[in-house]
Amino acid sequence: MRVLISEVGPRDGLQNVSATMSTDAKKAWIKAEADAGIREIEVGSFVPAKLLPQLADTAEIVSYARTIPGLTVAVLVPNARGASDAIAAGAHKLTLPLSVSETHSLRNLRRTHDQVIEEAGKIVGMIKELPEDQRPHFEGSLSTAFGCTLEGAIPDAQIASLAERLMDAGCDEVGLSDTTGYADPSSVRHLVKLVRGVVGDDRLTGIHLHNTRGLGLANVLAALESGLDTIDASLGGLGGCPFAPGASGNIVTEDLAFMLEAMGIETGVDLDKLFAVRSIVEAALPGEPLYGFVTDAGLPKGFTQHTGKAELAA
Amino acid sequence: MRVLISEVGPRDGLQNVSATMSTDAKKAWIKAEADAGIREIEVGSFVPAKLLPQLADTAEIVSYARTIPGLTVAVLVPNARGASDAIAAGAHKLTLPLSVSETHSLRNLRRTHDQVIEEAGKIVGMIKELPEDQRPHFEGSLSTAFGCTLEGAIPDAQIASLAERLMDAGCDEVGLSDTTGYADPSSVRHLVKLVRGVVGDDRLTGIHLHNTRGLGLANVLAALESGLDTIDASLGGLGGCPFAPGASGNIVTEDLAFMLEAMGIETGVDLDKLFAVRSIVEAALPGEPLYGFVTDAGLPKGFTQHTGKAELAA
Repeated sequence: MRVLISEVGPRDGLQNVSATMSTDAKKAWIKAEADAGIREIEVGSFVPAKLLPQLADTAEIVSYARTIPGLTVAVLVPNARGASDAIAAGAHKLTLPLSVSETHSLRNLRRTHDQVIEEAGKIVGMIKELPEDQRPHFEGSLSTAFGCTLEGAIPDAQIASLAERLMDAGCDEVGLSDTTGYADPSSVRHLVKLVRGVVGDDRLTGIHLHNTRGLGLANVLAALESGLDTIDASLGGLGGCPFAPGASGNIVTEDLAFMLEAMGIETGVDLDKLFAVRSIVEAALPGEPLYGFVTDAGLPKGFTQHTGKAELAA
Repeated sequence: MRVLISEVGPRDGLQNVSATMSTDAKKAWIKAEADAGIREIEVGSFVPAKLLPQLADTAEIVSYARTIPGLTVAVLVPNARGASDAIAAGAHKLTLPLSVSETHSLRNLRRTHDQVIEEAGKIVGMIKELPEDQRPHFEGSLSTAFGCTLEGAIPDAQIASLAERLMDAGCDEVGLSDTTGYADPSSVRHLVKLVRGVVGDDRLTGIHLHNTRGLGLANVLAALESGLDTIDASLGGLGGCPFAPGASGNIVTEDLAFMLEAMGIETGVDLDKLFAVRSIVEAALPGEPLYGFVTDAGLPKGFTQHTGKAELAA
């Protein structure tokens, strides 16, 4: 078995810290993670610089990241305008978030569901104008899928309908996102089955999980057992969780990679090299807490990593 | 599905803090957890008071805990002498740890494997002298089963052989213990299958897991899927983990109960009442860090606990 760890720290992590990381530090971070074997990184978001000054250099970062061989350069796009910038910069993968809670969608993106679906259609239109070999992969991400801090649980029918509408608008696939840290292993299994039933097994392969209530890696296990093979995570759990002082927001890349490698699942990641990337982030964001258990505790005595290093050597 | 959460904080938690909790505070803690629906508590250990002054009042605590209706009063016994004291005090369940790493066994209990098995036999002898309705349940716990900080991985054949020898000595069942926090979901599945293959499915039902490397609840999920239904945990992760400053040692009772209840698995526990028990422990051990994610983050919006409360009402 093989799993793709999709690093979202340079986007989701940095978006949730007050400091701004220098462009050079971002490049060093991305390069070091790619060197450690991470093959997909969400490097930024095409939002107005005044909203997220931390990510104002996303175009330059995309341009740099594209020079790293074998790396899939992903970005978040809140709308068609952002997607236009992302395409111009040359991103390999665009993710448009669609909050299945309309209340959250209105507050977060200031758009109704209909409006977000309309943006998805516009983005597909732009992508189709490109030559086939230059078209980025386009994912619609069902955010707050496991419940919303404003609305609570979202009905299955609403989630299924929105997944279908994203595919109808022309997305290549949909993703599930536990924006609020409400997921548990049963709800992960349930939603994967529900959404795959609508869009097809090959059109839902990835999940974005948080560790807000400590269930992050248990939810990963449920996701893998449900057939998903792409898991988002953030180095050092960067960004934290405003609702839970001791908790990372995103699941921690290092702990995820350790779990998978310990289970004999190939990630392509060299754990020691991955752990060493923390020092780059620590130096670039002084005082910002980093999370992670395995980096505190160290690898088990006698732990030898077979799959990741073999993969890297191959 | 139904799972028994076995609270080990008053033994394993207190054993790993420097302060000594008053006997009255222990009683209040045990009573409050039982009131919250916890049905098994390891209340102490029968070791010489000079070694663990924190647990010197174990006989009195056992005596008190026996007055709580429906509560299984468990204790740890390092040897036959401890078991004799435990039987005299009236404990319902005795657990004898046998470290599958002989190096660890010699350092921790100062006994070889043969000597521990001999103690197990002596304990069985004592139990058999009792009238049938007064005999405590006797478990041999395979500690360091997932690897040892001194020896690293322990061969399967050695673990299987020791499980068999504990059963041959007359134990009612064996348990698995990830003393070092080395387990991962695959190794949990592997060892459960291995040991059940030797002792029979009904003679391995429980597991003791740590969260040292953040995999505690993922390992619980693997254990449940492997058919186990008794999970040790410690309120607030009390005792911490000396190797990982931010990590609880034992998995946190509150997070475990939340995960199970969120999954619709009956625990009999009222989450709100359980969370409230923390204040007793906090007041009794000032300055001692308590862990737990769900207690920081709060329950998800709209989360209604069906199984636990229904169970309690029934």
